Amino acid sequence: MNDKYLEDLHVGDRFGSDALEVTAESIIAFARDFDPQPFHLDAAAAKESVFKELVASGWHTAAMSMKLFVTGSLRLAGGSVGLGVDELRWPRPVKPGDTLRLETEILDVRPSQSKPDRGVIRIRNVTTNQHDQVVQTFVASVLVRRRL
Amino acid sequence: MNDKYLEDLHVGDRFGSDALEVTAESIIAFARDFDPQPFHLDAAAAKESVFKELVASGWHTAAMSMKLFVTGSLRLAGGSVGLGVDELRWPRPVKPGDTLRLETEILDVRPSQSKPDRGVIRIRNVTTNQHDQVVQTFVASVLVRRRL
Repeated sequence: MNDKYLEDLHVGDRFGSDALEVTAESIIAFARDFDPQPFHLDAAAAKESVFKELVASGWHTAAMSMKLFVTGSLRLAGGSVGLGVDELRWPRPVKPGDTLRLETEILDVRPSQSKPDRGVIRIRNVTTNQHDQVVQTFVASVLVRRRL
Repeated sequence: MNDKYLEDLHVGDRFGSDALEVTAESIIAFARDFDPQPFHLDAAAAKESVFKELVASGWHTAAMSMKLFVTGSLRLAGGSVGLGVDELRWPRPVKPGDTLRLETEILDVRPSQSKPDRGVIRIRNVTTNQHDQVVQTFVASVLVRRRL
């Protein structure tokens, strides 16, 4: 196993991901379950919307980015347990045919004051499309185990 | 139609939602697609995790909360287009058998300086379970149409 502990992580470390292809079917399936709005459900209706075409729910983009994170190159011992997310932004929409990738940068590494077996890292996650355009950014605090 | 425009919304207004029942099947299905970690995929494996039982991905809780928002009592003209989310927190996990509800409070109402047909509202969304325990909170900026 190559799972990372708090001691293995340093400010400025960067981690990549696989690629994830976005289909109209996946956009529509997510929208039916969680964000049933015309511009996420139907290409014709989307033409009348502010987006002018079918686009993924921002929460779908967030979920796909989590898939890229969990299957990416930063594997944390004990799993990826998010404590909170800040500054979640969607500077441009995700569309059918897009291919997404995630880059993760370590912003902070902090051992717990009270619990010697754990710590918290602060990371920036940036999701880009096949044109290297940013489609999502956020900062997150994630629980990480320390070596005992 | 009863869709709300910017002029209809005021600081302090509150809006409720329907109820959404969470099943183990839905937790596992979301995890397979977007957050394939043992504590979201398998009740037995989850016993060995920090959670000690099967819990929903935080992004699943966020997606279910979006469903409650879109189908809730605050219906926005032109749809709910999120510009960004801050302070997203999951103070306790969502479990199989939970019933979720959402409450939305308007924190700010601001016409656009440059575009007279629109504005931005700032909202707090709080998701609770059947015991009135908070499972998720965040603040969001949402695009809203003005009456022309």
